Amino acid sequence: MSIITLTTDFGLSDWFVGAMKGVLLRIQPRAQLVDITHQIPPGDIRAGAFALASCYSLFPRRTVHLAVVDPGVGSSRAAIVVQTKDFLFVGPNNGVLSFALDREVIRSVRRLENPKFFRPSVSRTFHGRDVFAPIAAHLSKGAALAELGPEVSEYTRLPQANARRRGLERIGEVIYIDHFGNTITNISDADLAQFDFRVLKIHLRKCKKTIPLHEFYQAVPPGQALGLIGSTGFLEIAINGGNAARAMGLKIGEPIAVRPIAEEVRKHSRSKAPPR
Amino acid sequence: MSIITLTTDFGLSDWFVGAMKGVLLRIQPRAQLVDITHQIPPGDIRAGAFALASCYSLFPRRTVHLAVVDPGVGSSRAAIVVQTKDFLFVGPNNGVLSFALDREVIRSVRRLENPKFFRPSVSRTFHGRDVFAPIAAHLSKGAALAELGPEVSEYTRLPQANARRRGLERIGEVIYIDHFGNTITNISDADLAQFDFRVLKIHLRKCKKTIPLHEFYQAVPPGQALGLIGSTGFLEIAINGGNAARAMGLKIGEPIAVRPIAEEVRKHSRSKAPPR
Amino acid sequence: MSIITLTTDFGLSDWFVGAMKGVLLRIQPRAQLVDITHQIPPGDIRAGAFALASCYSLFPRRTVHLAVVDPGVGSSRAAIVVQTKDFLFVGPNNGVLSFALDREVIRSVRRLENPKFFRPSVSRTFHGRDVFAPIAAHLSKGAALAELGPEVSEYTRLPQANARRRGLERIGEVIYIDHFGNTITNISDADLAQFDFRVLKIHLRKCKKTIPLHEFYQAVPPGQALGLIGSTGFLEIAINGGNAARAMGLKIGEPIAVRPIAEEVRKHSRSKAPPR
Repeated sequence: MSIITLTTDFGLSDWFVGAMKGVLLRIQPRAQLVDITHQIPPGDIRAGAFALASCYSLFPRRTVHLAVVDPGVGSSRAAIVVQTKDFLFVGPNNGVLSFALDREVIRSVRRLENPKFFRPSVSRTFHGRDVFAPIAAHLSKGAALAELGPEVSEYTRLPQANARRRGLERIGEVIYIDHFGNTITNISDADLAQFDFRVLKIHLRKCKKTIPLHEFYQAVPPGQALGLIGSTGFLEIAINGGNAARAMGLKIGEPIAVRPIAEEVRKHSRSKAPPR
Repeated sequence: MSIITLTTDFGLSDWFVGAMKGVLLRIQPRAQLVDITHQIPPGDIRAGAFALASCYSLFPRRTVHLAVVDPGVGSSRAAIVVQTKDFLFVGPNNGVLSFALDREVIRSVRRLENPKFFRPSVSRTFHGRDVFAPIAAHLSKGAALAELGPEVSEYTRLPQANARRRGLERIGEVIYIDHFGNTITNISDADLAQFDFRVLKIHLRKCKKTIPLHEFYQAVPPGQALGLIGSTGFLEIAINGGNAARAMGLKIGEPIAVRPIAEEVRKHSRSKAPPR
Repeated sequence: MSIITLTTDFGLSDWFVGAMKGVLLRIQPRAQLVDITHQIPPGDIRAGAFALASCYSLFPRRTVHLAVVDPGVGSSRAAIVVQTKDFLFVGPNNGVLSFALDREVIRSVRRLENPKFFRPSVSRTFHGRDVFAPIAAHLSKGAALAELGPEVSEYTRLPQANARRRGLERIGEVIYIDHFGNTITNISDADLAQFDFRVLKIHLRKCKKTIPLHEFYQAVPPGQALGLIGSTGFLEIAINGGNAARAMGLKIGEPIAVRPIAEEVRKHSRSKAPPR
């Protein structure tokens, strides 16, 4: 069983994903195809990179991860395959793979230049179908990487804004808003590891709110806001039973500060192991 | 081939479903994964229960049905596995499984308490990934139920509002609105079995409409409203070629009455077998 | 491995697609099920036909293509199976299969009339579950076509509006709007094959705009409109990084004209092979 995952901004209302799967299965009929998501906002490379990075490592070793958020399709941007210790990644070299690759042990990065592994006729607007799907299928059948194209030294990295320290304060921002309206920040569990959650408050600057930090949604009454360390290991702002982004007008880039209460800070470590 | 179905409110825009599938396939690479739906309205346990109950029985015997609509994730609500005569069900013990289980012959209900079958680190916010997916995968590989946790006597049941009789009238309410705007009521085919459809009228109280009962959508001209026994065996309000819920402002809980015309009721049985 | 594709207007928010897959897998547990799309606008037979025609040929030979956009379900409209040189098609005989079939070598068209291959009880509102899914599953297991029902001479064809010539002008219309807001016209690559793209201008009559023709999206600056030959081989109107349909108010049926600049037309052929 060879697994190929798909992450795109193609949406689900047209035949685009079906077209890719047709090409994949024609070359590799035994593939197990898994959709990560096809609803990355159109052209939002950063959101695609974040989604892929948040789940790729859960798949079995040797899974081929295919990501196509590709506003530059048909231009001179390169297409790459990256072999890491555990996985293969295929996509445009525009950063969509980078948040995942940054966590991996890289074995090899190659530009996709051998048309023998593309569809016979390559359009200028749908490389998902004509380049990336056939490459992913051939990879899952064991194609030799050296045949696909020349090795290159680097892949394109998206800049990642890390949280900053200012004294005891941690300053970050909203980096992703999910289906539930939970807003994920770039303040990680590690950034807060030295604090007891009970002494921390989260300050939402634009909407001038201060909310507590807890461990799960129902730790506050329905309709109330809280922060918690979400399943990706980052601080999230949520509303128990509600949509935090909508209710509080939170957007990508919104500044977030986490600060211990007043001056008196109890520096004992938290009792539970952090989620990973 | 071992089939695992997924019913959640996770939506399709993030990596949540992909994350569950990664975990499932890592443990059970031969699983055939089938999405029932991931677009249950966030936290709507009742809608999740209705969706699952409407299709679970169509799957092959031994299918594992995984349902995660779980607003209480991380709190003290239990997680359960239920073995019935034909299927295995896994989910939070909040009622999301109950409409299906109420139709099944129950063999065993167990609380999921053995962390050996969870992911090594369990978050407080994503048990779909950390608890339910690994359990479902182990079940589909034949894990012994006795190892998963202690047997309990009951599962949580959601109350089901049945239709009532008032003389020859049948009184019910809207319980589900589908993608087409068809509004499903809790008045069942059995509730109407004694009547000839031709003598029945449906009364929509709030919008003060009376509409006829037919057997299929195109029995009335385009744009006109009708009632019919839908594919789940319940009375639905529909508009031929239109969206009944939107056009008539129907909502969950809206009262519906079905009544034979005037006084003269012909009590002959209907000629066709009812759909099942 | 036997592949069955699904194209419907059932949406993804209910259990309808899951129900079909349950029925499919119960009869044919080894099927590889592939969603083309389930978000055809409700009852839009033409959009369903276009989506299927745009990708069916990419799948491996002997794939069974199942399409259910079926506003006439339960009425007297027929259900058909069509065997072509390379594929099997199943669906209502209302034209939803016709754009694909028009490109195929037809071997046999049969009406589905043998209830032995349906579900034991057939509803009047959900033939996707009760008729088409079981038929598709039996076909993928090798059921003899002759057993399914009588041969008929024809399938229902949707009329296809082709582009017209008026001197050097090519006149067409918008026939499909995709997820990105790219608007696909019925002016094909062949219609424009005699021209150098550099001398062509696209005239959008209603919104009184004239835009250039290029080969890929980023050939114009972000936010600017262009025409290009899309991945289906038809002229599309797009905005680099934007939503052309929304920004320019383009709708299905909107007239589009392509015209060489002024009088001086250089009739040299284009240098690149057209995409297919």
